[in-house]
Amino acid sequence: MIKYPNGKKYSGTELREPSVPSSVDYSNRGMDFEEAIDASNQYYLEHNIAAIHKKPTPIQIVKVDYPQRSAAVIKEAYYKSASTTDYNGVFRGKYIDFEAKETKQVSFPLQNLHDHQVDHMRQVVHHKGISFILIHYARYDEIYLLFAEDLFFFWDRMKNGGRKSITRNEIAEKAQTIKLGFLPRIDYISIIQSKFLDDRR
Amino acid sequence: MIKYPNGKKYSGTELREPSVPSSVDYSNRGMDFEEAIDASNQYYLEHNIAAIHKKPTPIQIVKVDYPQRSAAVIKEAYYKSASTTDYNGVFRGKYIDFEAKETKQVSFPLQNLHDHQVDHMRQVVHHKGISFILIHYARYDEIYLLFAEDLFFFWDRMKNGGRKSITRNEIAEKAQTIKLGFLPRIDYISIIQSKFLDDRR
Repeated sequence: MIKYPNGKKYSGTELREPSVPSSVDYSNRGMDFEEAIDASNQYYLEHNIAAIHKKPTPIQIVKVDYPQRSAAVIKEAYYKSASTTDYNGVFRGKYIDFEAKETKQVSFPLQNLHDHQVDHMRQVVHHKGISFILIHYARYDEIYLLFAEDLFFFWDRMKNGGRKSITRNEIAEKAQTIKLGFLPRIDYISIIQSKFLDDRR
Repeated sequence: MIKYPNGKKYSGTELREPSVPSSVDYSNRGMDFEEAIDASNQYYLEHNIAAIHKKPTPIQIVKVDYPQRSAAVIKEAYYKSASTTDYNGVFRGKYIDFEAKETKQVSFPLQNLHDHQVDHMRQVVHHKGISFILIHYARYDEIYLLFAEDLFFFWDRMKNGGRKSITRNEIAEKAQTIKLGFLPRIDYISIIQSKFLDDRR
């Protein structure tokens, strides 16, 4: 067994080159999609690239106990559905706002998103923020970034009686592939930069 | 008794002019500071001025029950201290980020803020977002907007052994007064607009 100087085991996959082929099944490395995004955001923060955070899970608190000399204990609460997206923050002054979704299907089922989330994304776009979804296709271990403007097309198609999912071909045509990396693992900011900022200089 | 056409009682204070004198004790109107900010954000959203939301309260969930045929019930959870600020969103493409604090003191006690919140505000400013605190002086029923850059001065003064609060004179000199309005009640966006956007056109 190989160990790092800090005593951590060397698993054999951690020292890959920055750009890992998308065939790598990173889900087997014990890091789920959300954790990989959180780790990427942490990387962006520590390297002064962007300040983007996951919002806390919305909870409806019903009953709280206040024991003497110790912290308040929530004894009854319920999960609320999110009225906005899960992640937001700032990159070069611009407002960034996105949702991350995973699917095991071949097509991306639009029921993974809620009406109020899509409404929120429309508001973000209206106010000139940058909004998108990150999709992890667990079946292919591929990650795509689909900008909100393109998502709205598929969403409205569904609302007008069309198909309830985005096909793999449509994703391939409209979305940007994000190659899995070492650090950051899911470098979505590089796509934002090349689309919105590089050609504005 | 006077009633509106919708049957709602006319309380005598609801029909004030847009700019209400600061001597009005609006806390007696049954609306606390946070509710007034939420109502202002709702106004901005509905009038397509900005999309700014309060983040959910961060909760550490310890125990969840999954009763058959009903929603998951959180049976044990604790409040976590916030690692960022309470409010963020987008105004004309710019990232907006702020914290709201109330004090009954004459000076504003800096212990109302946490290190990690101020660290977060520094990151926002570094990434060219717009960051500030809204302070409600309950004693005077006055509301001020203090930009993060000015807050850092007082924060660092405290960290260097100086006073642990911002005096009333310092606030008057450095912060912007927000007059209470009818709609929106706390029109902080007008200050952002005049400081950051009007002179950039």
